[in-house]
Amino acid sequence: MNNSFGERLVLTTFGESHGPAVGGVLDGFPSRFRIDFGRVAAALASRAPSCVATDTSRREPDEVEWLSGILDGVTLGTPIAFIVRNVCQRSCDYDALRHVYRPSHADLTYDLRYGIRDYRGGGRASARETVARVVAGSLAEQWLEQTHGVTIETSVTMPDVIPVNDSVGSAVHCSVKGMPAGKGTPLFSKLQARLADAMFSIPACRSFEYGSGAASFGMSGSVHNDQMEYADGHLRFLTNHAGGILGGISTGEEIMFDVVFKPVPSISLPQHTVTDDRQNTLLTISGRHDRVIAPRAAAVVRSMTALTLMDQII
Amino acid sequence: MNNSFGERLVLTTFGESHGPAVGGVLDGFPSRFRIDFGRVAAALASRAPSCVATDTSRREPDEVEWLSGILDGVTLGTPIAFIVRNVCQRSCDYDALRHVYRPSHADLTYDLRYGIRDYRGGGRASARETVARVVAGSLAEQWLEQTHGVTIETSVTMPDVIPVNDSVGSAVHCSVKGMPAGKGTPLFSKLQARLADAMFSIPACRSFEYGSGAASFGMSGSVHNDQMEYADGHLRFLTNHAGGILGGISTGEEIMFDVVFKPVPSISLPQHTVTDDRQNTLLTISGRHDRVIAPRAAAVVRSMTALTLMDQII
Amino acid sequence: MNNSFGERLVLTTFGESHGPAVGGVLDGFPSRFRIDFGRVAAALASRAPSCVATDTSRREPDEVEWLSGILDGVTLGTPIAFIVRNVCQRSCDYDALRHVYRPSHADLTYDLRYGIRDYRGGGRASARETVARVVAGSLAEQWLEQTHGVTIETSVTMPDVIPVNDSVGSAVHCSVKGMPAGKGTPLFSKLQARLADAMFSIPACRSFEYGSGAASFGMSGSVHNDQMEYADGHLRFLTNHAGGILGGISTGEEIMFDVVFKPVPSISLPQHTVTDDRQNTLLTISGRHDRVIAPRAAAVVRSMTALTLMDQII
Amino acid sequence: MNNSFGERLVLTTFGESHGPAVGGVLDGFPSRFRIDFGRVAAALASRAPSCVATDTSRREPDEVEWLSGILDGVTLGTPIAFIVRNVCQRSCDYDALRHVYRPSHADLTYDLRYGIRDYRGGGRASARETVARVVAGSLAEQWLEQTHGVTIETSVTMPDVIPVNDSVGSAVHCSVKGMPAGKGTPLFSKLQARLADAMFSIPACRSFEYGSGAASFGMSGSVHNDQMEYADGHLRFLTNHAGGILGGISTGEEIMFDVVFKPVPSISLPQHTVTDDRQNTLLTISGRHDRVIAPRAAAVVRSMTALTLMDQII
Repeated sequence: MNNSFGERLVLTTFGESHGPAVGGVLDGFPSRFRIDFGRVAAALASRAPSCVATDTSRREPDEVEWLSGILDGVTLGTPIAFIVRNVCQRSCDYDALRHVYRPSHADLTYDLRYGIRDYRGGGRASARETVARVVAGSLAEQWLEQTHGVTIETSVTMPDVIPVNDSVGSAVHCSVKGMPAGKGTPLFSKLQARLADAMFSIPACRSFEYGSGAASFGMSGSVHNDQMEYADGHLRFLTNHAGGILGGISTGEEIMFDVVFKPVPSISLPQHTVTDDRQNTLLTISGRHDRVIAPRAAAVVRSMTALTLMDQII
Repeated sequence: MNNSFGERLVLTTFGESHGPAVGGVLDGFPSRFRIDFGRVAAALASRAPSCVATDTSRREPDEVEWLSGILDGVTLGTPIAFIVRNVCQRSCDYDALRHVYRPSHADLTYDLRYGIRDYRGGGRASARETVARVVAGSLAEQWLEQTHGVTIETSVTMPDVIPVNDSVGSAVHCSVKGMPAGKGTPLFSKLQARLADAMFSIPACRSFEYGSGAASFGMSGSVHNDQMEYADGHLRFLTNHAGGILGGISTGEEIMFDVVFKPVPSISLPQHTVTDDRQNTLLTISGRHDRVIAPRAAAVVRSMTALTLMDQII
Repeated sequence: MNNSFGERLVLTTFGESHGPAVGGVLDGFPSRFRIDFGRVAAALASRAPSCVATDTSRREPDEVEWLSGILDGVTLGTPIAFIVRNVCQRSCDYDALRHVYRPSHADLTYDLRYGIRDYRGGGRASARETVARVVAGSLAEQWLEQTHGVTIETSVTMPDVIPVNDSVGSAVHCSVKGMPAGKGTPLFSKLQARLADAMFSIPACRSFEYGSGAASFGMSGSVHNDQMEYADGHLRFLTNHAGGILGGISTGEEIMFDVVFKPVPSISLPQHTVTDDRQNTLLTISGRHDRVIAPRAAAVVRSMTALTLMDQII
Repeated sequence: MNNSFGERLVLTTFGESHGPAVGGVLDGFPSRFRIDFGRVAAALASRAPSCVATDTSRREPDEVEWLSGILDGVTLGTPIAFIVRNVCQRSCDYDALRHVYRPSHADLTYDLRYGIRDYRGGGRASARETVARVVAGSLAEQWLEQTHGVTIETSVTMPDVIPVNDSVGSAVHCSVKGMPAGKGTPLFSKLQARLADAMFSIPACRSFEYGSGAASFGMSGSVHNDQMEYADGHLRFLTNHAGGILGGISTGEEIMFDVVFKPVPSISLPQHTVTDDRQNTLLTISGRHDRVIAPRAAAVVRSMTALTLMDQII
């Protein structure tokens, strides 16, 4: 089991959805950086469920308790540990699911792998765990902006209509401006591989493409190649089909990639499934659930991008 | 710089395209496994250029020299080191490229990163490096088959027509049968993240999707969810939109994913580009080059898949 | 900065001596193991200062707050996070030390490395951090005992007399019984190298030797070699100068090693030192300090040994 | 199995004592450094057996074949791979040892761990493997000297008289001058822990101590503490019991440590031992063997020190 992400900037997360808390330890963050705690709260709020009909009705205050690594708002260079307590735990909602494997959830595979699982709200597999990523990601995003002028933007695409009592797929487009050229490594930890690894660590992610992506299938080399020229003493790419990355290393151009999320697997419609004592059953899921992933996942995409890029720069 | 792949089964590759040799060290391979050297040769042959018009005219015998880790054809549990000498090196072809950055190649970014590069044939960024992956991958594939009955198949998709003197994009579909259930990890090294990381380490890969992939965008949860039932005492999924992976862990179903490669960047048409002393120039590339990537890359997809899956199982 | 220990069983610790808490995340601990919380408390008590004159007067209740990875007293296979709050913080004691580098402490080198430090009680360099190791180590020790019958014992050696207002060096001998044969690796992560790495991670450790240790300098091969024989069907070593380890791998015999700790550097006698604005000064340290390290460090030796050995076995 | 050493500068070694070659891959070495190949040869010569009576009669030319990472004598920043062929292989010497476990060798534990071993000359456990460390270590030593002015010196201590047909223990003292202050990490990868890890990776090492070492047991804090003062604007330590390391981080003072090696286990005297089919036997070892380790191991101590320190600096 691997609950850590990154090589030089390492985030380790912990916590079950319905345990006392979720949290993280961020190791490798440089010393003497002043944290803007308001921005952390704002990032958490953008991940939190909204009041629109597509979001879960679970409401958490998501207050961060900082445990170490910061003195008077400034980083010490030591591990930054933090927790966010789970206070809105209606675990009783999950009693009915104690012995049932929900379709397209990780219930079955957790039991296969560990022989035990915290059935309440998906336990560790719950998207609740991403709270820790957003806290850490916000610190990374602040650092990228203030020390290198790197900015990250995301936009969400989703169907106009969600069928009654059902869920839909969705997508996030991410754009990074200001990434310094020459970052990344050329063989097995290519910058795009690091980003893909980051995105596929987000629950429900099914596809990652960067630059021209899957559309490059239909292009010829003469169309696809990004020609270059010097103009006014500056290197300029005539196109950016590379999405800002060549040979695993940043070119200095805008980094662009797209992520597709599957439909939320928790739906209220009856489904055929099985129990942990090998019985067939028909399951109807009640409880509080999102109906589309991208709107809340965008904050996680942004956070994982920030952690990945900062890891490449420090 | 990171030239190693894997956590328990670790492949480290080395070698420049026009240096004395390319090779690898495979550490963590179990002891007492008998190698079929004929299959290694066959795997290398499937990666080697063919006689069709889309492939480079560089011809290498690709004979593997085994340096360690094997005694009388049986593995010792110690690192398996091997080299494949580069004998067909027409480096003079590359003299004209000594100071020019080829569009959509890694020439520019290598110089940005290292301040030096082996300009002959792309040096370390050349697809020649993948020879080492195919040798190691063949060992992993043999091990998967014989010890766990896991089989890997690939199929190639490419345009019917390649424009004269130009190149095209292409795709590889990969299918894995027999993967044991319960392999992988649920958070940051999800099985799909490992596979994505592996695929994006292959030069020119632009897109990775698994299971329902990007198409899941247009699905509702009720269509997409893989319902389950027990039939004749066996667990059965009614569909496999998950592509054999739930929560980062294998379900035991077929693992399926798709990879898209950009068009070969070396084309004979004239292109605008720049030199390492900041001059604009018009480049026409001669030399030996493929015109489409997937047919030869399929062997690399297969090899990287085998290394990734074996790493999860041992 | 590296605040993690282990490869398969990974402990990450965090927390400053006078921050809100110290704590840890233990990742890789197997699922379905029942924790004896009483033993954890007992281990912490053995590390805590006693009432004898050689120990610091800082008194902490050291209550463990478990945050994740355990459900109804049984491990889930997910990361086990825990904190121990710092409640007895007389930080004002340290105001006088804000700009002074204490001799033979890490004050100077922390400033050299990070440009900032938590001056209160040594911050991260304080032995207070070892609380987290003892909590995690107790879990590992319980696991070793119950699943493999491995037991760890330590004994302390120290001078009979400690000069008034001064401190002394000390030593810990550690003995491990029941270690299965065949554990460890032969090259760069030899079992003895892992143990040495573990011991030198403990503050103030100056020497590590195993088996015949430094005394092997004065031995001939014919005396030193551990001859073997089968007796009653069991392999028997006639001696155990190897300390239970050959070629980096356990033999199944008792593992024995010795660690020496330097004198406690905080002493009440006046000392020549310097300030962070490059002034010379004469320092007299007040505050609460131990006068000998081994009696409390023995619990840490035991814990680090348990973590190291469990990491080799799982 | 772990055949790699280092975190940023990573050496992977391979090769059996009586296989085709031993060699290594050095990854992470900076680009644009000019190699002095004569110094590499000299380092290998200092490790090679001499003509005095204490050394083995095996004579290898030890010529290095460079495979990658270097162009026209200058490093490329890509992995530096090299091999040294084994040409003086009198493997027949070892036929008699095929089924016998030599006392105080790794024969038994290799079989316990891997179920197979290359019985010829110890296979991978042979000191022959250290050839690869000396090649890589020489590159690191050159880099330390030329870029940072760091110099490494070793001295050997051994008994005046070696009993006829027997072997003796020995020691190496190592001193590093010019190490920049502020290098290392304070918790789990302390500089002294990295050095201890490096030294215990050398076959036959039984003890590591640094600075005041085991002698600190008998010191009081007032004697042991290294007091400081500014003199002529420079920080000066009045003593250096810390051996140049405080809190895991270099102080800028001389780094000093001592290593003790056990007696060579291959001796000509008859010894009680067992076979791999569980028979007792009396073994008399013929063949070519050293009688004391330190004189040749000093080159390995120096190399591992250089690799360790360069890993901390880059």
